[in-house]
Amino acid sequence: MAPLKLGMVGGGQGAFIGGVHRMAARLDGCFDLVAGAFSSDAARAHASAAELGIDADRSYADFSEMAQAEAARADGIDAVSIVTPNHLHGPIAEAFLTQGISVICDKPMTATLEQAESLTAAAEASKGHFFLTHNYTGYPMIRQARQMVADGALGAIRIVEADYLQDWLSHAPDADNKQAKWRLDAAQSGGGAIGDIGTHAYNLACFVSGLRTSSLSATLTSHVAGRLVDDDARITLQFDGGARGHIWASQVAIGNENNLTLAVYGEKGSLRWAQENPNVLWFAKLGQAPQMITRGGAAASLAAAAVTRIPAGHPEGYLEAFATLYREAAEVITNQGKSGAIIGIEDGLDGVRFVDACQRSSRDGASWIDLR
Amino acid sequence: MAPLKLGMVGGGQGAFIGGVHRMAARLDGCFDLVAGAFSSDAARAHASAAELGIDADRSYADFSEMAQAEAARADGIDAVSIVTPNHLHGPIAEAFLTQGISVICDKPMTATLEQAESLTAAAEASKGHFFLTHNYTGYPMIRQARQMVADGALGAIRIVEADYLQDWLSHAPDADNKQAKWRLDAAQSGGGAIGDIGTHAYNLACFVSGLRTSSLSATLTSHVAGRLVDDDARITLQFDGGARGHIWASQVAIGNENNLTLAVYGEKGSLRWAQENPNVLWFAKLGQAPQMITRGGAAASLAAAAVTRIPAGHPEGYLEAFATLYREAAEVITNQGKSGAIIGIEDGLDGVRFVDACQRSSRDGASWIDLR
Amino acid sequence: MAPLKLGMVGGGQGAFIGGVHRMAARLDGCFDLVAGAFSSDAARAHASAAELGIDADRSYADFSEMAQAEAARADGIDAVSIVTPNHLHGPIAEAFLTQGISVICDKPMTATLEQAESLTAAAEASKGHFFLTHNYTGYPMIRQARQMVADGALGAIRIVEADYLQDWLSHAPDADNKQAKWRLDAAQSGGGAIGDIGTHAYNLACFVSGLRTSSLSATLTSHVAGRLVDDDARITLQFDGGARGHIWASQVAIGNENNLTLAVYGEKGSLRWAQENPNVLWFAKLGQAPQMITRGGAAASLAAAAVTRIPAGHPEGYLEAFATLYREAAEVITNQGKSGAIIGIEDGLDGVRFVDACQRSSRDGASWIDLR
Amino acid sequence: MAPLKLGMVGGGQGAFIGGVHRMAARLDGCFDLVAGAFSSDAARAHASAAELGIDADRSYADFSEMAQAEAARADGIDAVSIVTPNHLHGPIAEAFLTQGISVICDKPMTATLEQAESLTAAAEASKGHFFLTHNYTGYPMIRQARQMVADGALGAIRIVEADYLQDWLSHAPDADNKQAKWRLDAAQSGGGAIGDIGTHAYNLACFVSGLRTSSLSATLTSHVAGRLVDDDARITLQFDGGARGHIWASQVAIGNENNLTLAVYGEKGSLRWAQENPNVLWFAKLGQAPQMITRGGAAASLAAAAVTRIPAGHPEGYLEAFATLYREAAEVITNQGKSGAIIGIEDGLDGVRFVDACQRSSRDGASWIDLR
Repeated sequence: MAPLKLGMVGGGQGAFIGGVHRMAARLDGCFDLVAGAFSSDAARAHASAAELGIDADRSYADFSEMAQAEAARADGIDAVSIVTPNHLHGPIAEAFLTQGISVICDKPMTATLEQAESLTAAAEASKGHFFLTHNYTGYPMIRQARQMVADGALGAIRIVEADYLQDWLSHAPDADNKQAKWRLDAAQSGGGAIGDIGTHAYNLACFVSGLRTSSLSATLTSHVAGRLVDDDARITLQFDGGARGHIWASQVAIGNENNLTLAVYGEKGSLRWAQENPNVLWFAKLGQAPQMITRGGAAASLAAAAVTRIPAGHPEGYLEAFATLYREAAEVITNQGKSGAIIGIEDGLDGVRFVDACQRSSRDGASWIDLR
Repeated sequence: MAPLKLGMVGGGQGAFIGGVHRMAARLDGCFDLVAGAFSSDAARAHASAAELGIDADRSYADFSEMAQAEAARADGIDAVSIVTPNHLHGPIAEAFLTQGISVICDKPMTATLEQAESLTAAAEASKGHFFLTHNYTGYPMIRQARQMVADGALGAIRIVEADYLQDWLSHAPDADNKQAKWRLDAAQSGGGAIGDIGTHAYNLACFVSGLRTSSLSATLTSHVAGRLVDDDARITLQFDGGARGHIWASQVAIGNENNLTLAVYGEKGSLRWAQENPNVLWFAKLGQAPQMITRGGAAASLAAAAVTRIPAGHPEGYLEAFATLYREAAEVITNQGKSGAIIGIEDGLDGVRFVDACQRSSRDGASWIDLR
Repeated sequence: MAPLKLGMVGGGQGAFIGGVHRMAARLDGCFDLVAGAFSSDAARAHASAAELGIDADRSYADFSEMAQAEAARADGIDAVSIVTPNHLHGPIAEAFLTQGISVICDKPMTATLEQAESLTAAAEASKGHFFLTHNYTGYPMIRQARQMVADGALGAIRIVEADYLQDWLSHAPDADNKQAKWRLDAAQSGGGAIGDIGTHAYNLACFVSGLRTSSLSATLTSHVAGRLVDDDARITLQFDGGARGHIWASQVAIGNENNLTLAVYGEKGSLRWAQENPNVLWFAKLGQAPQMITRGGAAASLAAAAVTRIPAGHPEGYLEAFATLYREAAEVITNQGKSGAIIGIEDGLDGVRFVDACQRSSRDGASWIDLR
Repeated sequence: MAPLKLGMVGGGQGAFIGGVHRMAARLDGCFDLVAGAFSSDAARAHASAAELGIDADRSYADFSEMAQAEAARADGIDAVSIVTPNHLHGPIAEAFLTQGISVICDKPMTATLEQAESLTAAAEASKGHFFLTHNYTGYPMIRQARQMVADGALGAIRIVEADYLQDWLSHAPDADNKQAKWRLDAAQSGGGAIGDIGTHAYNLACFVSGLRTSSLSATLTSHVAGRLVDDDARITLQFDGGARGHIWASQVAIGNENNLTLAVYGEKGSLRWAQENPNVLWFAKLGQAPQMITRGGAAASLAAAAVTRIPAGHPEGYLEAFATLYREAAEVITNQGKSGAIIGIEDGLDGVRFVDACQRSSRDGASWIDLR
């Protein structure tokens, strides 16, 4: 198919995740980046646009203006990527959805539950689609794990453990660390480790297990003096049907880079996966030797094959998984159908409710919060 | 030195841990097994004794009789190993301590807190020593980890994570599984996963970190229908000084054999270790490439070297670690001095208090229990 | 910079490596694919072109015609990717180089030494550049390894071991396996495992060590009945200066997917790397604990950082390494300068000489062949 | 059974392997050490004997005297362990075999082929047994691998790769390094890496594959200036029936401790094993996900179970594997039967022939040497 036309809000010079979204959008040739509001500072916005080869007349300093102008063009964008700090996700997404333009939004969906609920209403009213980039769901072995659980390979699920460990905030960051600055400001981020990486772990646990949370208990901690948001979070989940989930998200666990791991234990077997070596999925059945399933290998499933680009033994990585979400978004936008694997507005709302409940639980001594 | 004379209570035909203690006692040549009450069934006891080459006049069917008879002999035993189900540890240990005979006791120390307190009083009154075989503390890399923490290599400790995962009780065991039977009977074991393996994880966390617990919150679960003890335990520890600890002990985590892992995170660095490949210790300092420290290797410490038998790259295992506890017990008995690494009566009492507090917390909805 | 215009020869429907080259060319936005001769069958060529969004007037069925036509256009291609079976690399590359169009060619450079020498002359006479896609040289940790060796971190090199193990040709393939068919036909491939993967291992050994081969001894074997090319190759290299190299390339080593590993041992230290988990480089100095260097991590070098797209712990894979070669080719074409890491015509000639020498040595009972 | 009475020659103060043999002999309670000639220096011999608790009248300074005296005693030793430098193995073993006393001898069997042939004749004439401690054959997963190959799980074997890498001789050792000194003296050792560790790798390759060598080609190298024996050896084996073997033994591979690995590739599947984590065996069948077989785990075979002491997940190590050889020797001595897994005089002779052939081949430019 011909590439869709993509805009971007945020992601200008000095940003990290904007460049990731651009590479992901480009890898499979499904999107051409043609417009952007790369910064709220006009000079920076236009400088970034020029660097990225965007025509000057489609470089904007204001997202509202961009949404209106692009909606008015015959060759206007089909979708917009939102890669700003969290507190801006909601207003920006609403501006584009209101114009009927599909939105591909970085996580967490919003910084507050109020924003999330408002955005949910806007998404439901829009002819545009809403996609949330919980990018780890794009890994082929995660798709395989999800299919195996759904197919009953593990039997009834008993325990889900999802941990996401980093160490980059083990100390107070340098004042000029742009990535750290807004994340450590609750007004911009909505939370610390819980929002930045805890939501990823939570989403992954639910995506693979297919379980829904009935209640949770959380302890959010800050280990660095003077820090106003959490940098370590421990959550116990009670799922509908009786299974238990456990999440540990930490940004002070020295020796960990992006050590996101998932383990799912059922009555008949288990699955284990680690993001830093993502082409491998461990499958153990009770009373049998554990098996190492590889992406593209002999035991790879259809669900994995559908999002696999290259043969076994040649590793696919983070950008490929991210690109899969862009490709699937393009398919939905084009076909007006929804892939079963899409992370959308309901998952986004669920994630923000999760953060909110964790914060309330933790403030109340790890009390149990009902999510139903 | 000449070998000490050892007796044993429990560990007859069909037992598992008795054989382990015998190999551990023998490996370094510190003990000769010369007496035993290998079963409370006289015929079985004597049959086991004969198999083990024990003189018939030192084969007993009753531990009280054995304690008195051995104490009365000029060539009586120097120490007794207790390898019975948990509920008998206390009475047997008291019987020998009362006779001034040192005790090497399997863990947990007792099945109830009342027994533990009684035994503690008996140990304090005895001229014999009391040793508890938390055998994982005998691994050289655990000794190194403990020394590194004490030396400040990690800075102030923030987080300790100790997990012990097994899968052998994922389903109801066969009726003739002797190992499972008494462990699943609370009257004999005092608890399920929490007592059998949770105490190991807890002991290891404290042994390496040097931290003491001020309070805890626990959730004990049973995943198998009809099971009356826990098979999965999650505990949060609040240590004196502010560090947090987390323990996960499970006997239903399919794909895990004896997957005991320890991670200690401090302000400056971290240590990670896994029992199933115990000759390696991972050390990460913030801002440096992680290092793989090996038993006997270039970065091994004096604490590790003191309990290392063979050069680097030739693995030492479970029996060697266990044997180290026997060797150190022999040194204490002989020298009348106490090694710093000895796990003794206070650790045993601490472990039983831990189990008791976990059970109370879990019954009360994971409430926080004060241990001070 | 604005993307360069790229053509492609080969890589139509059903091909594997063509798609890899297209993703690699696209990832960093350095190339737009605008022309192609995707098959020598006109109907297939045009169907592939249409699928890929190539204008019909730039879809060719004949590479010579394409070279002339593109050279004549004002908006003609800046470079062409050659992704055909090996025996066509030479003629096609010469056709484009003769027209002054740069060539990005899959490996091995040619199927025969005669072709390689002819192509070398053509490349020297052309204003176009020649790039050979020994894609494994694009991995950041390989760049770091190369820099560390050059900086003397290992001291004088003693031993280089490069192994590339696969299992996909363990048995005679299905008749319709297009990838296998031409590779097992010596007339098209020029050789079996030695040409297909042995050249990769050889190139990597030389690229990282900086050593040049003075002589070699090789044993090429075919383990599958009726197979006319080698499927297992063992080569001993004598390097200038006294170091030894060893290469093992096999396509019948069951359990291996693309298990390319490199180890370099020097007087002071060693480096080890494995392609299937390529973001890690092991560095051991004599008398110190081995270090795990990670892409993007604390110990990553400038050479690695220059080809790194995303932070540590988020894996980059095969396509990213491949894309780095495309990006660097674009830089050379644009800047008219040559990056030190570029694999070019001399490396290609060296690789074909290597294959030729291995085949002669093996036919002669593993005799030593002089390469100087 | 009652322990057998064991003597030892060599292994006095400052020795390494003597202590290993003593622990191995003791672990399963099959032997009591009651006599020894621990040094040829009488004072050192008697001091060592006293330390080890040997009666003074059974401490000897001369092995011939010991053999005669022990043979004459009613309570004389049943077997003697020989743990001297290699060049003494032959004469000592002959002295005891001539007296009808069984011999447990460290490897390689002798320092010269002449000694090996003489000893073979002596062993055949003796009522005593001869056991060679190729200790790696005692690992349970090696027994399982051997059984799986014999049972046809891999189909016909194509390739065997056995590598043994160390780094402790990367430089000239200190003058007082007793272990290094005799090993680097060809008169005492009979060879360098080839004899010390190459024979282990060779024995393991043959033990597991069940193949016999028809011819070989070897390159022995010395990387350290002034060293008179090899420190790096590469050998290609041609087995009867057409399979190939490859051995790499190095003592200058920095970053390796005792990195002995074995891979066996057959028509249907493969096995891989590494000594430094010996409780795991990787089994891959073509077209299936690779399996991780663990000692004591669900897929462990009878052959593994027969030499397994403790349950899965509690690692057994080097001493346990060594002890298995002692236990099996005791069974043979007692039962007058021969276990199929015993490494005896023919394996010892085969190993010395292997070393001799490697040395001749290497001196002759890696020429092929016929072993039939």
